[in-house]
Amino acid sequence: MKNAIVGQSGGPSTVINSSLAGVIAACKQNKDIGKIYGMKHGIEGFLKEEIIDFDFADDETIKKLKASPAMALGSCRYKLPEKGESIKDYEKAKELFKKYNIGYFFYIGGNDSMDTILKLHEFFEDSGIHFVGVPKTIDNDLCITDHTPGFGSAAKYLATTMSELITDTSIYDVKSVTIVEIMGRNSGWLTLAASMPKILGGDKPDFTYLPEVPFNEEKFISDVKQKLQTENSIIIAVSEGIKDESGEYVGSSTKSGATDIFGHKYLSGVGKYMEHLVREKIGCKVRSIEINLMQRAAMHLSSLCDITEAYDVGFKAVEIAKTESGVMAVILRTGNNPYTYKIGFEKIEKIADKEKLVPKEWCNLNDLKVKEEIKEYILPLMKGNPELYYNENEMPCHISFIKNK
Amino acid sequence: MKNAIVGQSGGPSTVINSSLAGVIAACKQNKDIGKIYGMKHGIEGFLKEEIIDFDFADDETIKKLKASPAMALGSCRYKLPEKGESIKDYEKAKELFKKYNIGYFFYIGGNDSMDTILKLHEFFEDSGIHFVGVPKTIDNDLCITDHTPGFGSAAKYLATTMSELITDTSIYDVKSVTIVEIMGRNSGWLTLAASMPKILGGDKPDFTYLPEVPFNEEKFISDVKQKLQTENSIIIAVSEGIKDESGEYVGSSTKSGATDIFGHKYLSGVGKYMEHLVREKIGCKVRSIEINLMQRAAMHLSSLCDITEAYDVGFKAVEIAKTESGVMAVILRTGNNPYTYKIGFEKIEKIADKEKLVPKEWCNLNDLKVKEEIKEYILPLMKGNPELYYNENEMPCHISFIKNK
Repeated sequence: MKNAIVGQSGGPSTVINSSLAGVIAACKQNKDIGKIYGMKHGIEGFLKEEIIDFDFADDETIKKLKASPAMALGSCRYKLPEKGESIKDYEKAKELFKKYNIGYFFYIGGNDSMDTILKLHEFFEDSGIHFVGVPKTIDNDLCITDHTPGFGSAAKYLATTMSELITDTSIYDVKSVTIVEIMGRNSGWLTLAASMPKILGGDKPDFTYLPEVPFNEEKFISDVKQKLQTENSIIIAVSEGIKDESGEYVGSSTKSGATDIFGHKYLSGVGKYMEHLVREKIGCKVRSIEINLMQRAAMHLSSLCDITEAYDVGFKAVEIAKTESGVMAVILRTGNNPYTYKIGFEKIEKIADKEKLVPKEWCNLNDLKVKEEIKEYILPLMKGNPELYYNENEMPCHISFIKNK
Repeated sequence: MKNAIVGQSGGPSTVINSSLAGVIAACKQNKDIGKIYGMKHGIEGFLKEEIIDFDFADDETIKKLKASPAMALGSCRYKLPEKGESIKDYEKAKELFKKYNIGYFFYIGGNDSMDTILKLHEFFEDSGIHFVGVPKTIDNDLCITDHTPGFGSAAKYLATTMSELITDTSIYDVKSVTIVEIMGRNSGWLTLAASMPKILGGDKPDFTYLPEVPFNEEKFISDVKQKLQTENSIIIAVSEGIKDESGEYVGSSTKSGATDIFGHKYLSGVGKYMEHLVREKIGCKVRSIEINLMQRAAMHLSSLCDITEAYDVGFKAVEIAKTESGVMAVILRTGNNPYTYKIGFEKIEKIADKEKLVPKEWCNLNDLKVKEEIKEYILPLMKGNPELYYNENEMPCHISFIKNK
C-alpha cells in the first residue's frame, strides 16, 4: 500500500489550510492509502527532506486547520528545473519518493504550483506515482475552475471593508478623494469584489479601475473633477496592476523617474501615484489606502462557502488521485439560486501558465445587467461565517506545523 | 421645558454613534427635556442651521445606530474663534439657541471638540444652557478618563489583524522584515494594542516603537540584524508619530529631502521610511503595511465592551447635564478581575488640550510585569462581540443622517 504526501506553495489565503485539512482527512479515511505525510515549505522543503508524519492529526487538528489562515506547512516560491536543465532535484525527489513509499502527491497552490505538478508528472510518468493539484489563489485567475478557493473570503473582506471605508470617508462636508488599492497584478477580480457595494445597488465606489482596461490619466482626472461637482466624498477602487494604453504599469518607476531618499527609483504603488495626481491636478483633500496583506490574511472575516469548498476540493482530490495524474481538481458551478457546485478535474496543461481575466463586458459597472451577472457570480462565494477558534483572551488561534523550525 | 441638541466632531471611530444613541435615548426618556435635535457636521453645520429633529428616532434607530461606524450626523474640523477674536459665530449660536429653545448642548469628540465645549461654556456662562462633552477617540489620549470610547474597538481590530499578519508573514523559509504602521501621532496606545500578541505571551511582534521613546536608526538596524540571525520573519509594530532624539518625526520630508514625481517634498510615512532603511542597510525581503483608516472604521470587529461604554457615557452625559456645564463625562475604572467601571465627569479645563501618553515604564515590552499591567488595562476593553446588522446580501448596514445632503 502506497503513502501520500501533501504540500502548499505560493502566496497565502485564508482557506488553503482548509484544503490541506480536506486532503489529510480523505487520506486518513481512504483504505487504499497508507500514511499521509506533509512537506514543510513546499517542494523546496521536500527536497531537503523536511517531512512530517500526519499520524497526530486528529479531528480536532482538522477542525482547527480549517480556521487557520496562511499555510500551516509553510510555503516556498521554488521553480523546478525545465526539461534539459539539471535533473538533480528530480533525482533527489526520486530517492525520497522511494524512501517514503509515495504513491500520491498533492500540491495546493496557484499557477506556479501547478507548474510543479506538471513537471513532476512528466518526469515521473512511468513511476506509478499520481500527482494532483489543488487550486488556491485569492486572485481567482486560474482557468477551467469556476473560481478559486481563497477568492470568496478575500472578496468578503474587501466588500465589507469597502463598505466601512465608504461610511468613514463620507462624514465631512468637504471635497475629498479616497483611493483604495487592491491586489491583482493582471486580473481585476478582487477589485470587482471591492466594488460590491456598487454592484449591489449603491452609488459607491464612484470609480473602479481594472487591469483589463487601459487607464487614461487625463480621463481619470476629468471624470473625478466632474464627479466632485455633485459629490463631496469620492471613493475609488483600483487594482495594483492597472496599465496605460502602452501597456506600462501606471506609476511605475521607469515612467515617473522619481527617486527615493536613498537615490533609488521610487517604486510607488498605483494608489500613491493616483493620490499625487489628484493632489497635483485637482488639489482637494486626497488619501490612498493600500489594503495590503489584510485581504489575504483576514481569517476573522472569511467565508463559510469558501472554507467549505476549499475543504471539498482537497478531499475530492484524493479520490481523483486514485485514477488520475497530472491533473488539478476544479470547482464546477452547477447552478445559481441556489448556488450549487461539484468537484471535477482537468489536465494541468490546460491550466498552468494561463490566466483567467475579467471578461471585457464585465468591466462596465454602470450597466445594470452586468451588475446582476457579477453579483450572481461573486456573491454566493462570500456567504456564511465559519466556526473559528479563540483563546481565553478572545484572540484567534492559528495552527502551524513549522513553528520552532 | 428646554430642548437638547447633540453633535459629533473630529475623526471617526466605530463607537461614536453608540454615544449618539445613548444621548438620544436618555433625552427621550428624560421628562425634563423636550425635543432632542441633531446638528449635521458638528458646530460648523449648526452655525449654518443644519439641524434635524430626532422625533423619528425609535428603538430600532437606536439599535442600528449602535452598529454603525463613523458619524451618522457627519463631522467637522472647525475651531471656534478665541476670546477677543470675532464673535460672529457666537452671535449666530445665540440666535439658534433661542430659536430652538436649547437648554442642553452635547458634543461628542476628542480634544479639539472639547475645546468647542469649553469656549461655548465660557461665552454662554450666564445663559443657563448646559454644555457637556462626550469623549471619543481611538487614540486614547484624553486625560482623566480611564480610557476613551473607540479605543477598545480599534485595539481589538489591531490585535486581531496583527495576529493574522504574524501568521501570514511566517510561512516562508527566507529572511524577511514586515513593518506595520499604526495610528498615533503623539501617543502609542494603539501601537501597544497592536502588540497584544506579544503582551499576551507570544514572541511577536519582535519590536514595538512608540512615539514616547526617541527612535534611533542605528540601534533599529542593529537590533533587526541581530534578530534576523535567529528568526526568519521579523514583524514590527510602529506608531506613525515616532520621533528621533532631536524630536523630529522619523522619515519626515524636511529630513529626507526626497522629492516625489511632481517635485514635491516626498511625504513618506514612517513605515515606508523604515522599509527603505531595511532594504538599504540590511538588504533582505522587506514590506511595510499601513493599517490606515481600517483601524478606526472596522465595525465588523468592534468590541462589545467599547460599544456598551460608549452608549453609557452618552446616556449618563444627559444626567450630568442637569446640574453641570463645561464638563466632560469620563469613564472611571472601579475594578479589575472582573473589570468594572462607572461614569463620572470632570471640568473641561482639566482635559482639553492635554494629552495622556503611554507611561515611560510601560514602553518596555520585554518586562513580564509590564506586560501583565498592560494586559490588565487593555484586554477587557477589547472583549465581546456586539450585535451587528446585515442585509440579505450579508453586507453590513450602516445608518447615516447626512446622506443626500
